[in-house]
Amino acid sequence: MTAERLSHLHTALNQAGFDALVLNPSPTLYYLTGLRFHLMERPVLAIFKPGQDPILVLPELESVKVAQVPFPVQAFVYGDDPATWAEVFNRAGAALAPAKLKIGVEPTWLRYLELEILKAALPDGEFVPAGAVIGALRLHKEASELGRMRLAVEAAQLAFNATLSLIKAGMTERQLASELTIQLLRAGSDSEFPFAPIIASGPNSANPHASPTDRPLASGDLVVIDWGASIQGYCSDLTRTIAIKHVKPELAFIHDVVAQANAAGRTCARAGKTAGEVDQAARKVIEDAGYGEYFIHRTGHGLGMEAHEEPYIFGGNPRVLAPGMTFTVEPGIYLPGLGGVRIEDNIVITHSGAESLSNLVRDLIVVG
Amino acid sequence: MTAERLSHLHTALNQAGFDALVLNPSPTLYYLTGLRFHLMERPVLAIFKPGQDPILVLPELESVKVAQVPFPVQAFVYGDDPATWAEVFNRAGAALAPAKLKIGVEPTWLRYLELEILKAALPDGEFVPAGAVIGALRLHKEASELGRMRLAVEAAQLAFNATLSLIKAGMTERQLASELTIQLLRAGSDSEFPFAPIIASGPNSANPHASPTDRPLASGDLVVIDWGASIQGYCSDLTRTIAIKHVKPELAFIHDVVAQANAAGRTCARAGKTAGEVDQAARKVIEDAGYGEYFIHRTGHGLGMEAHEEPYIFGGNPRVLAPGMTFTVEPGIYLPGLGGVRIEDNIVITHSGAESLSNLVRDLIVVG
Repeated sequence: MTAERLSHLHTALNQAGFDALVLNPSPTLYYLTGLRFHLMERPVLAIFKPGQDPILVLPELESVKVAQVPFPVQAFVYGDDPATWAEVFNRAGAALAPAKLKIGVEPTWLRYLELEILKAALPDGEFVPAGAVIGALRLHKEASELGRMRLAVEAAQLAFNATLSLIKAGMTERQLASELTIQLLRAGSDSEFPFAPIIASGPNSANPHASPTDRPLASGDLVVIDWGASIQGYCSDLTRTIAIKHVKPELAFIHDVVAQANAAGRTCARAGKTAGEVDQAARKVIEDAGYGEYFIHRTGHGLGMEAHEEPYIFGGNPRVLAPGMTFTVEPGIYLPGLGGVRIEDNIVITHSGAESLSNLVRDLIVVG
Repeated sequence: MTAERLSHLHTALNQAGFDALVLNPSPTLYYLTGLRFHLMERPVLAIFKPGQDPILVLPELESVKVAQVPFPVQAFVYGDDPATWAEVFNRAGAALAPAKLKIGVEPTWLRYLELEILKAALPDGEFVPAGAVIGALRLHKEASELGRMRLAVEAAQLAFNATLSLIKAGMTERQLASELTIQLLRAGSDSEFPFAPIIASGPNSANPHASPTDRPLASGDLVVIDWGASIQGYCSDLTRTIAIKHVKPELAFIHDVVAQANAAGRTCARAGKTAGEVDQAARKVIEDAGYGEYFIHRTGHGLGMEAHEEPYIFGGNPRVLAPGMTFTVEPGIYLPGLGGVRIEDNIVITHSGAESLSNLVRDLIVVG
């Protein structure tokens, strides 16, 4: 599979006018080579140039991974003393003739550390963002990728259902996050999660990106639960909002509004529509209900090997949706001091419309 | 605490000749501000310049975090359409007068994404690695930091002991990694682990940085178990190697050699010794036993808010150890095709020598 992906990459680089692409450890590197590295202080670089074997520079203690690459590579290995690294990277750079090249980089992954090393090893290289080339490569999921995403959604849903019966007033956000994480593992998720679960209760739920705290869940709380599993490198990313016992009528009402906005977004999604139209469809429901100013984020984001990737579902995005694209639909309403609601599903565009990979109940679940 | 750290930072920047420091989401940002962000496609930047309130640029959906910073900041908030970001970052840059500044960056965290935004917003700025300034700031752990590290070691040890009774031949590396992760959560670790556990069995254990596979543990295997907990942002990082039933005499022998090398490294560690001397002390034991060429990594690395940080314990490192420095001692021997051993403890330099925060048994544990 990866040899075919490599050939697609070479075509895409040629079409976009790049001479080469350089990657550090990232999902794209895994996509192309099957290799995973922890992103640490030891730089790892892979350089892909059409017409020659990819170049791989890595620390000695990772060198057994070279044999796992499904195509020939030129490997350069360095030891543990940082003073010796430059010479090895310079040799790798010299293998990339001619030196005057337009080299694509992955802006959300390549670090200052690697960029400086590259500039030293390839002083005539021009390093240019290649996010669009990479995004396009990974945008249309293959059947094998969709299969893994389905498993990741299934594991996340199993974990949620197993956790639900354990939730009660008095347990803390952190305790609930731990239980949900345990259930994700029991349901088969990889230990490298797409992100740590968000559990945000009561007033904390009005913060879309809260981290779990020691606040105990209390009667009257809304609790936003945002979690995902990872299966063989592919992510799910779901959110449900539950109530602890009886919540105020306005909180129950905004839950209904968000559920309708979620449905409107999912219904709008199909091939030929733009990402922006999906955002607008969901947003209109919330605006019409008078809560537009409290929906303070985009409606969704692409999902695959990364928890956030192309296509991004925001109002002004002209990207046209096409079969195989996968993304979240996750409208929300956040009332400062009171609480918030978000309902998130994972969608794939099909030839006949769109399919929600997730099917957990979207009505307000009342616990306790 | 963070207001005092901010003042230390300003002094360190002045002494090192920097006008300012820019950070993206990283442990150093958490150290200075108490703020945590997921590192994603939405850029978050904090700029620290002695003599003025720190500048914070962040997405609207994170804006509630501004109020959590324990000192005044100038906050700039942007929305979800990337086309609108540059204007907001430019305003933030303009607040950093004068424009011609030498600005420190954190090379292992700052990405191409943020660097390009900074260069556009501060066209006369010079962006220079400030890893040494940051490393020095975080190198000497305060009592409160050591307290969290002790808790992180304790949680990791509890988890290991709880997992040990569950290990048996036939379970896969991935299953064991899941069980260990579950026990880490039960023992109180944050869900944001320092790293996903490494479980490497049989021939896989000869790869120091293996990822768990579906290989079942089998009689005669060595199993390298490398795991850590995180408590309030501080890490532990331990390794033990166990045997499944009866292992070959050479594998039992290299376990003894590594245990002696681990002891030699810990014994050598004290204030006044260099990091290089600790490496050499551990390495000598392995070389004297005839396995020098199979110890293919440094003896250890600093540990704290990051799983790898200063001081790095490699042969040529002249850094002099001093009280409050915390690092791993983790020699290993890796015999390709046969198996490997690593034994890792977490050390703090004290006024009277060094203390091992970890005290799990270092003899070969035989399971099954």
